[in-house]
Amino acid sequence: MKELGIGSEKIIRRKRDGELEYQPDELTIEEPLEIRIGRKSLATTMRTPGRDEELAAGFLISEAIVRERKEIVAISGTHENVITLELAAGVKLKLGSARRFGTISSSCGICGKNSIAAIRQNFPAIATAQNVRVEIETLLSLPALLRKQQGEFERTGGIHAAGLFDLKGEPKIVREDIGRHNAVDKVIGRAFLDGLVPLDRHVLLVSGRASFEIMQKALSAGIPIVASISAPSTLAMNFARESNQTLVGFLRPPSFNVYSHVKRVILEER
Amino acid sequence: MKELGIGSEKIIRRKRDGELEYQPDELTIEEPLEIRIGRKSLATTMRTPGRDEELAAGFLISEAIVRERKEIVAISGTHENVITLELAAGVKLKLGSARRFGTISSSCGICGKNSIAAIRQNFPAIATAQNVRVEIETLLSLPALLRKQQGEFERTGGIHAAGLFDLKGEPKIVREDIGRHNAVDKVIGRAFLDGLVPLDRHVLLVSGRASFEIMQKALSAGIPIVASISAPSTLAMNFARESNQTLVGFLRPPSFNVYSHVKRVILEER
Repeated sequence: MKELGIGSEKIIRRKRDGELEYQPDELTIEEPLEIRIGRKSLATTMRTPGRDEELAAGFLISEAIVRERKEIVAISGTHENVITLELAAGVKLKLGSARRFGTISSSCGICGKNSIAAIRQNFPAIATAQNVRVEIETLLSLPALLRKQQGEFERTGGIHAAGLFDLKGEPKIVREDIGRHNAVDKVIGRAFLDGLVPLDRHVLLVSGRASFEIMQKALSAGIPIVASISAPSTLAMNFARESNQTLVGFLRPPSFNVYSHVKRVILEER
Repeated sequence: MKELGIGSEKIIRRKRDGELEYQPDELTIEEPLEIRIGRKSLATTMRTPGRDEELAAGFLISEAIVRERKEIVAISGTHENVITLELAAGVKLKLGSARRFGTISSSCGICGKNSIAAIRQNFPAIATAQNVRVEIETLLSLPALLRKQQGEFERTGGIHAAGLFDLKGEPKIVREDIGRHNAVDKVIGRAFLDGLVPLDRHVLLVSGRASFEIMQKALSAGIPIVASISAPSTLAMNFARESNQTLVGFLRPPSFNVYSHVKRVILEER
């Protein structure tokens, strides 16, 4: 069961008719993963076990530590919730500022960035390409496609998903994790490990909300179109506008909102 | 508008009938907040502006930096998204391990803890008190009470809430934030600043899921009963079992699940 990221436990359930029953329940597994570069501990995340190498790679890309596949020389298997990566000679860890300020680690949502400036990684904006556009019907098809590939949500109700699609709406990579940022890291990490980054002809769909950090992670992989089932934040929208990313929110067929760069959505009738 | 944590922006909306319209939309504001202790930068969180002093205080409690009200001597107003706290002489910042490992800051979901051991703060388990129990009907009333106090969710759909209730179901403190951990920090921080911690006769309700960190934050304030509208994780459940916390999940009247220490739920008929 553990491989699937689900644990089974006996719990007490109050049913709709008020009856109480003692029965097994399936929960999403949450465990810490410590990411190390050589002997250095880089970060620890609360994640759903499985595909840790993708999570680690995705994290390194979105933190602007690596940009090219060859910069990751080796990734260990996960052992006691620790995964270790070896980087190519010359790849610098940007640990300087963290050390200088003496960052204390922080909770999910508290990003642990030790200065506001450091949040922004300064990835280049997406280049405008004429033919990177998506049909409305394609956009509307994505939530059902994501759900179909999501094995665990139906069972536990406690897991986020991120999916990468091509411009025709073909699912390429779908990943689930208890943390929504982790699901995105896993998707981007898989694409990166397969040499597919930049993903400049792809759409990223996230099952929850679109925050600033989701947009920045997408930008780090060159993704021009991001859609979310739920609401975006102001900062996500402003970031998308500056970064030349198309941001679609509340993608709940037959409705959706476009918050930035609508040029990539084909609005005219065919 | 900004004071309310909501921004208004023009967006393109596809309506249910397929018509497109260009109209204003309300979004939840997301901005970074840097928390400083004196001149030291402690952490930066992506949060919804407002009640930053509560967020900062709650963060310090749940990171086990302060335990008593008097340990926080002064809190500045927020200036350019920076809030500064002065601690009493003798309060030690636990920055040692972070410095030693050279933690790089990390994304939401990636906790920035630089070793797995450091995640666990080792707060004492909740003491068992005979009369700390809640009626089923009280539990079932909480989600509607939380929703009623939630001003922003209805408008933006993009915000989490946490609510503190007494054992009779009376709402005491309700806070909203784009980050679910922040909403809990604000609730706990408010109670702490008002000298109400430990909250050993209270119930915490969170609008989303119950993760390990939500349970640990509740434990840091001595909260014996935690309920969530959505799913808990395995680690949240295991932590609750060890910490003598009652964990209720999927609290969706008339149903709910109890994952630990059901002794605090009054199951018998009156």
